[in-house]
Amino acid sequence: MNILIVYAHPAPESFNAALKTEIVSYLDSQGHHVQISDLYAMRWKSTLDEGDMPQRDSSVPFHPSRDSQIAFESGTQSNDIQVEQEKLLWADAVIFQFPLWWFSMPAIMKGWFERVYAYGFAYGYGEHSDVHWGDRYGEGNLSGKRAMLLVTVGGWESHYSARGVNGPIEDILFPINHGMLFYPGFDVLPPMVIYRAGKMDTQRFSKIKLELHARLNGLDSIKPISYLKQNGGAYRIPELTLKDGVNEDKQGFDAHLISK
Amino acid sequence: MNILIVYAHPAPESFNAALKTEIVSYLDSQGHHVQISDLYAMRWKSTLDEGDMPQRDSSVPFHPSRDSQIAFESGTQSNDIQVEQEKLLWADAVIFQFPLWWFSMPAIMKGWFERVYAYGFAYGYGEHSDVHWGDRYGEGNLSGKRAMLLVTVGGWESHYSARGVNGPIEDILFPINHGMLFYPGFDVLPPMVIYRAGKMDTQRFSKIKLELHARLNGLDSIKPISYLKQNGGAYRIPELTLKDGVNEDKQGFDAHLISK
Repeated sequence: MNILIVYAHPAPESFNAALKTEIVSYLDSQGHHVQISDLYAMRWKSTLDEGDMPQRDSSVPFHPSRDSQIAFESGTQSNDIQVEQEKLLWADAVIFQFPLWWFSMPAIMKGWFERVYAYGFAYGYGEHSDVHWGDRYGEGNLSGKRAMLLVTVGGWESHYSARGVNGPIEDILFPINHGMLFYPGFDVLPPMVIYRAGKMDTQRFSKIKLELHARLNGLDSIKPISYLKQNGGAYRIPELTLKDGVNEDKQGFDAHLISK
Repeated sequence: MNILIVYAHPAPESFNAALKTEIVSYLDSQGHHVQISDLYAMRWKSTLDEGDMPQRDSSVPFHPSRDSQIAFESGTQSNDIQVEQEKLLWADAVIFQFPLWWFSMPAIMKGWFERVYAYGFAYGYGEHSDVHWGDRYGEGNLSGKRAMLLVTVGGWESHYSARGVNGPIEDILFPINHGMLFYPGFDVLPPMVIYRAGKMDTQRFSKIKLELHARLNGLDSIKPISYLKQNGGAYRIPELTLKDGVNEDKQGFDAHLISK
């Protein structure tokens, strides 16, 4: 498989860095083709701004999504954006590895999505009719590819459990898994979450490596999270609310999963 | 009141910019003291890295939270961080204004939180015992202050409703309202969310201004979101899970609200 790792941690001697090294080494040993976007090492530009469309007409007021569309369609995006889009198109599977900072990904990775997910590339396309509302949430340019979050967390697992004070980790990650990965078409694998990552020792790291290898071996076979497809019949169009009778016993984000 | 506006939008001729101008003008007219952190205009550094601790010992591996603590305690943080911390301490209320990009705040504002919320300033302090687990979630250095999100959204309100395809807006914003604002002690007001912000006209903007004025008039009086305090008796310590009998009829993020 072609596997892209999008990685965000600022410290080359961190546990996260060791984990990334382990991933690359294991995937290599299994004969996969690997590319890495090491955002800190690349000094990735975090901030979406006019610089992303170097040829835009500066006499017209800047409009982030419209200018993104013009640059994407005319092939005049900033080169760093185009390179990352090509990596995504090359990949069969993408691993997003990051420490959970303030209950989301680091800013540098958020900025990767904002800039690489151009209008026309990751959103803003597909038929809009009374049975279809854009190619998104299960359809889109990244359909057929798989994505998985690999997240390190400082706190305890119980703090992120169903009744933990931070909220359930599945819900904390829903805006990423559903809103940023399922949206342009990825099949989204259950995340691998490593708790108390600041308290790592050799013995625990050995166990984590075994779980990691199993996850990597299963990149093409593990069952994705079973989100409902937007245009698959469960939602009213264009309101995009679940139809009567669909998951009425569920609340919040859980209502967007296919019932077992 | 002393009111801080933390604002993130890249386009000076955008609806967001007009909204910010309206806020400042109205607050001025009511005799409030206003400061603005216009992150794009300030060319705010989005990325947390070693540069944030210019005097750190570079012979020691970089460790983001530990180095943040050392720099905060020794008064050797990067000056831009210290200036923002002083604005927070000055403020009675803080408005965070941003467009919702990929179901969260723009990277530049995420980076503001990551860098300004130093270890010792916004987290990492308070007694840890069998009845108290740090000063957080309702206690902390920003206690007694109020915060409110002002969020513009491209999509329709129904798409963000209880059964809308994106998930309920309250849940999408929970990691911010609860995890980033309630965490260091803010009283968090219900967000003001403006849908279909790309389809604005003068008539609609006039109505929005009226709602905005009411919100601004109520900054010191509107009832905050009633989150349970971590150390208030509802949670087991140190597991930080809700005790038996607390909100057992609720699921997900909703379980962390005080029952009516």
